[in-house]
Amino acid sequence: MDPNTSGLVQKLAEAGQSHLFQFWKELSPKDQQELFQDLQGIDFLEINGFFKRAMETSSSTKHEKMDERMEPVPREVLGSVTRDRESLKDWEAKGLDCIAQSKVAVLLLAGGQGTRLGFSYPKGMYDVGLPSHKTLFQIQAERILKLQQLAEQKTTVKCCVPWYIMTSGRTMESTKDFFSKHKYFGLDKDNVIFFQQGMLPAMDYNGKIILESKGKLSMAPDGNGGLYRALGNQGILDDMQRRGVEFIHVYCVDNILVKVADPTFIGFCVQKGADCGAKVVEKTNPTEAVGVVCKVDGRYQVVEYSEITLATAEKRSSDGRLMFNAGNVANHFFSFSFLRDVVQKYEPQLQHHVAQKKIPFVDVHGQLIKPEKPNGIKMEKFVFDIFQFAKTFVVYEVLREDEFSPLKNADTQDGKDTPTTARHALMSLHHRWVLNAGGHFIDENGRRVPAIPSLKDGTDLPIKCEISPLVSYAGEGLEKLVKGQEFQATLMIDERGVHELVKNGV
Amino acid sequence: MDPNTSGLVQKLAEAGQSHLFQFWKELSPKDQQELFQDLQGIDFLEINGFFKRAMETSSSTKHEKMDERMEPVPREVLGSVTRDRESLKDWEAKGLDCIAQSKVAVLLLAGGQGTRLGFSYPKGMYDVGLPSHKTLFQIQAERILKLQQLAEQKTTVKCCVPWYIMTSGRTMESTKDFFSKHKYFGLDKDNVIFFQQGMLPAMDYNGKIILESKGKLSMAPDGNGGLYRALGNQGILDDMQRRGVEFIHVYCVDNILVKVADPTFIGFCVQKGADCGAKVVEKTNPTEAVGVVCKVDGRYQVVEYSEITLATAEKRSSDGRLMFNAGNVANHFFSFSFLRDVVQKYEPQLQHHVAQKKIPFVDVHGQLIKPEKPNGIKMEKFVFDIFQFAKTFVVYEVLREDEFSPLKNADTQDGKDTPTTARHALMSLHHRWVLNAGGHFIDENGRRVPAIPSLKDGTDLPIKCEISPLVSYAGEGLEKLVKGQEFQATLMIDERGVHELVKNGV
Repeated sequence: MDPNTSGLVQKLAEAGQSHLFQFWKELSPKDQQELFQDLQGIDFLEINGFFKRAMETSSSTKHEKMDERMEPVPREVLGSVTRDRESLKDWEAKGLDCIAQSKVAVLLLAGGQGTRLGFSYPKGMYDVGLPSHKTLFQIQAERILKLQQLAEQKTTVKCCVPWYIMTSGRTMESTKDFFSKHKYFGLDKDNVIFFQQGMLPAMDYNGKIILESKGKLSMAPDGNGGLYRALGNQGILDDMQRRGVEFIHVYCVDNILVKVADPTFIGFCVQKGADCGAKVVEKTNPTEAVGVVCKVDGRYQVVEYSEITLATAEKRSSDGRLMFNAGNVANHFFSFSFLRDVVQKYEPQLQHHVAQKKIPFVDVHGQLIKPEKPNGIKMEKFVFDIFQFAKTFVVYEVLREDEFSPLKNADTQDGKDTPTTARHALMSLHHRWVLNAGGHFIDENGRRVPAIPSLKDGTDLPIKCEISPLVSYAGEGLEKLVKGQEFQATLMIDERGVHELVKNGV
Repeated sequence: MDPNTSGLVQKLAEAGQSHLFQFWKELSPKDQQELFQDLQGIDFLEINGFFKRAMETSSSTKHEKMDERMEPVPREVLGSVTRDRESLKDWEAKGLDCIAQSKVAVLLLAGGQGTRLGFSYPKGMYDVGLPSHKTLFQIQAERILKLQQLAEQKTTVKCCVPWYIMTSGRTMESTKDFFSKHKYFGLDKDNVIFFQQGMLPAMDYNGKIILESKGKLSMAPDGNGGLYRALGNQGILDDMQRRGVEFIHVYCVDNILVKVADPTFIGFCVQKGADCGAKVVEKTNPTEAVGVVCKVDGRYQVVEYSEITLATAEKRSSDGRLMFNAGNVANHFFSFSFLRDVVQKYEPQLQHHVAQKKIPFVDVHGQLIKPEKPNGIKMEKFVFDIFQFAKTFVVYEVLREDEFSPLKNADTQDGKDTPTTARHALMSLHHRWVLNAGGHFIDENGRRVPAIPSLKDGTDLPIKCEISPLVSYAGEGLEKLVKGQEFQATLMIDERGVHELVKNGV
């Protein structure tokens, strides 16, 4: 195995990446072989092209002028759980019909590791410390199971919601092992389909690929927008077509409240004849770090919080709400035909976004350096980059406290989006389900606990209450279990019944 | 000094409080004297009456039925900084006029200690860790100073905003010392008037006063509604009358963003001919632990979060907002004549609220016990109890991120209302002031920092920026200092100029 004879040396020279061989002679034969294989799998001219175009776009002044080009989402394309209450039942019924006919698939973006959580496994394997200690993957799997049951109860026809799970090179093996070990959490193995997003090398500001060790390129997943390329080159579109999937719900693994394949959202999008839809939560604080769905030059897109000026972020409509308040939560609807067009026609036109990063690298002496300032870029596409190609785009606004609590950071003082906030969000939702179904909570003295718990002194934490998705998908069906009854926390309701963990001494 | 001869023994026996003497013989002469004096100052029959009525009200079922009696604040009594933008300038001008005519006083509720902060001093002495290390008292004093200047600039007449500060028995001395030591932060000593709210003994569930040691009653301030009684019996109303005060802004010490004597709020209330007004922030999450201003049986009041059912908390108007969304922030307007009527006529009619507490006590053997469950009550009145007596009540809705960030708890993981959240809220507001005045922030590489900082990995904290109230009361007057300029954090702007603490190596 000689890089010369393989033409690889010349290929790298032509691409200006010959420095990748600089430590070749110091490498063991095994490391040489691995580097050789890694390099052979890379299209350097394509990557150089990505770099050139991404840097051009990034350094252009387009963001500066974006403010004047932004328009809010018009009311006629907006569905809202708070403002369109009279339509919710219809939308839900429509969505359940689609599910019952096995026309709906879910697609999970699960390429991320829990690095910021201090966790080297796939994020979906994280246990936020619920009474059941279920992982994010299990919670989501059980919601799919329950939804299939609800649809089947409605139609008495057996249906299936296939679950496509996009991992990255770093998470594929451990994700598959985890599902296998847990018997796919009760789902049919054939309906859980794993695929892998691409990786791209990190580059310095001159377009040179960065080495993270003498024989190893610094590689990173190509962003959640890597989805579209992967759908094509890994046969996922074909699989969807074969199964007759017409509607796809795409979401991100880190949201513990995610309503997987939410029938109301799907029904709304289908009734509106949408090819693409975004679920959003209301942004209420101008400086909240969330991207907003809006129109730019007449086309829908997500404007990220870092691109927006304060003046635009603070603009308000006459009703007093923020004008740009459609907070993106990485939760989308696509029709199959739109997704196919995206993969085949539109995605290749998209440029990568540039993320400036601190990327550990080996210097010319072969020494590993951990930089303190950004020293290079990672190139990413985003899942929402393709909104602009939609012919009928809709937006669906839901309540944050019911549907969005992402897990991003480890528990720290003043922490946002931590295991604690995720756990509290889920227990608070389930607490409300019990109250709304006519149940009550009492304290250790038998007194009824107020519906809104005080959080005054840190000892009055949220009521501990967890309801298995196998029992209720969105609060339905609980009356027969809780109505008129009094419970002492911790309350757990699962497929085996209603349990008060304190009373039982568990 | 013999309790027998003084009639005190008989008085206590008649009131069923003889147990307060049970350790008399064990006390030192000094402790005997102190207990004697404490007991002489107490009207036991009155307190027994308070207890009886408070417990009756507390155990009655009125809260259960409140939901059906609640109505939201009608639009016509509501002013809103987001929905009535065209009126804000007028209201502000009106308020400044009143201030310029020395018709406006501020009244600070500062009876609380920083117990939950792990701080035994008055809360106003707390330093949340701003670059300037100013305390809450200093920040508020400087806002008053600045407001006097703004009003004087407008009218060229010298004016005064007297500051009435209500302390409790526990905080009076240290508060006065602190102000004296700091030369009243530049205010005229004669215009800072301290007075003291009353104290009431804690009682067990049988109405027996609790001893916290063998010779000492367990006493607690009588709630922020103790204000009204204190205004009368300490000559404060008379002082207001003598000064010609017509409008009073009442607020609580713990809100770092408080716009003391906010001219826009005052102007709104005055233009509406209101005798009583409440500043509120929008409650957006049904289970947020905040009381709401609403009408009950046609009269305004604050319904506390613990009194509300979930069904009511979740009710929404047709515009999708929560129906009961006027979140009370202990920030009120009173006309002098209303306040006088309250003190003289209405307050005595009000019953105390019952707060169940874990109250340390000495048992019959003289041993101090710290109970793990609530074992007794404290009796309190609330400052908003008198809304029901207003003839023209108005509500003024402001933005939480601009005006409300209370300091209640010590810094802990997942903490709410902590020194960190207070500090961040103030710096975020001042950051936005700089941006809106045309200034920019750059990072250590000279690149412009996005208006909305990422909070992703905990290292990207809010831009450190603090503007002295002596320079700007509410963001005004900054253009000449920052427009078109680039700053590196930490930025401090005070009466001595504009400082970048990094560059200067401070």
